[in-house]
Amino acid sequence: MSKQINKVAITGGTHGNELTGVYLINKYKKNPDLVKRDSFQTIFMHTNVGAMQKCTRYVDKDLNRTFIKKDLANPEKYCYEDVLAKNINEKLGPKGAEKTAVDFIVDLHSTTSDMGLSIVIDNDSELTWQIASYLKEKEPNLHIFRWKGDTKEVSFVNSITKDGFAIEVGPIPQGVLRADLFFETEKLVGHILDYFEKLNTNQLNKTYKTLEIYDHVKLLDFPRGEDGEICATVHPNLQDNGYYKLSKGDPLFITLEGEVINYDENDEMYALFINEAAYYEKGFAMCLTEKKSISL
Amino acid sequence: MSKQINKVAITGGTHGNELTGVYLINKYKKNPDLVKRDSFQTIFMHTNVGAMQKCTRYVDKDLNRTFIKKDLANPEKYCYEDVLAKNINEKLGPKGAEKTAVDFIVDLHSTTSDMGLSIVIDNDSELTWQIASYLKEKEPNLHIFRWKGDTKEVSFVNSITKDGFAIEVGPIPQGVLRADLFFETEKLVGHILDYFEKLNTNQLNKTYKTLEIYDHVKLLDFPRGEDGEICATVHPNLQDNGYYKLSKGDPLFITLEGEVINYDENDEMYALFINEAAYYEKGFAMCLTEKKSISL
Repeated sequence: MSKQINKVAITGGTHGNELTGVYLINKYKKNPDLVKRDSFQTIFMHTNVGAMQKCTRYVDKDLNRTFIKKDLANPEKYCYEDVLAKNINEKLGPKGAEKTAVDFIVDLHSTTSDMGLSIVIDNDSELTWQIASYLKEKEPNLHIFRWKGDTKEVSFVNSITKDGFAIEVGPIPQGVLRADLFFETEKLVGHILDYFEKLNTNQLNKTYKTLEIYDHVKLLDFPRGEDGEICATVHPNLQDNGYYKLSKGDPLFITLEGEVINYDENDEMYALFINEAAYYEKGFAMCLTEKKSISL
Repeated sequence: MSKQINKVAITGGTHGNELTGVYLINKYKKNPDLVKRDSFQTIFMHTNVGAMQKCTRYVDKDLNRTFIKKDLANPEKYCYEDVLAKNINEKLGPKGAEKTAVDFIVDLHSTTSDMGLSIVIDNDSELTWQIASYLKEKEPNLHIFRWKGDTKEVSFVNSITKDGFAIEVGPIPQGVLRADLFFETEKLVGHILDYFEKLNTNQLNKTYKTLEIYDHVKLLDFPRGEDGEICATVHPNLQDNGYYKLSKGDPLFITLEGEVINYDENDEMYALFINEAAYYEKGFAMCLTEKKSISL
């Protein structure tokens, strides 16, 4: 690839109760040299300070579903996260422009589900997939999840730029700083910046051709009663097992009364984002994915 | 003991994002026979519906630190949880009375720390300690923690009555319903009710004399910088290890820069409530306790 990277943004605190990103940005503020590379500029920022101060996911609505082009241009969208999104979009974007203020966004997240070290990609741009492959080579325990979304338009922070992705690490309860995954996230960010440095200085001697990923198939909700209340939760087999392989007949949920509900589809799937706290209100208990090797 | 139990309260949702109690009360609402016993009445209630609806610990302040006698009588205390506390105190108490509306309160909690199945006791009443011993016999994996508090007056929900305690189970992220610990909590509540039934019908043929407990010594905060911000989190050795035995020189915290801070006291202690999300704002990273056998 001949692309030159001029400016990279590392964003954290998009969800104010996901402390890995909050504290990694704090660390960069104290030690900016950690993200300095010779051939490009790195900026870093807390994206949702209001939510961080309350230690909640958001103040009014999920910032990481707010980067919708027509909303960013709509003056009647004015809740806290609407305003934040417009502000961030001006700094890093604007979304949809041929030339954006930064070339790449890495948005830092954590999850209560057992996702290990993972990245979530929502675009098909060449650079993003090449860097994902490079990261997988550097960190073989990295999982790559291609997200197809719960909204029509991908509206993540990192969707402002054509290239970018979110880092997701877990399991981490909301409001907790967990040392091991903090340092793993930091190391991964280091690899990302090293990649850009190598790209800019023509030190990359390899183009990746294939990559193993978890490919989004669908979102699965909890079983709910007539009142809309959850009446079952994920079965213990799945609880601490990220990327769980589901075959027909496997236990999937267990009701509050102890009745097991099995997975009843013919297709084998891998379940991830299992029992993520923030997804209760969104109406899903897990994502079902296909594990596959894709051509780049 | 000759005490007769007439009425028992099981309370859940005191912290609105601790879903074990929220959903166990939901289950009892659907199946009240589960907590019915012949010789006494069991009532069950959600204590903080406002916080439950927001899926937050509290609306204005921690309800489980709000049962302070002079505040309950103070008309100038009127925030959401102040009002709730007065309301609950009228239903179940009043606190400090010789005769309260219920004889025993079991308040249901969960924690992000690895506390397993545990009960937290803050009083020295005979019945409470006898039942704790009975529960330990029934569930040998149960841990008993004697709490000496972060407030002058114990101000938990269960402090309304002379007898009672909180059940704490973990690790569970806030906002997550975890099947295994849900059913363990339910089973423990069943044992408690069975105990009262046996007590009332003279079927208890044993008085317990000693009990192994974790006895509160002190609360330990995270290391913080001059700005008051956390600059280290718990060391990975402690992260997933409830009731961790600390000896002088053991790793305790790790700074964001990776520097290990050791436990530097001569006394051996057991750490529990390690890295509980809700305690960040209270200013403690863990409780240090002594493991001991006490005479009853």
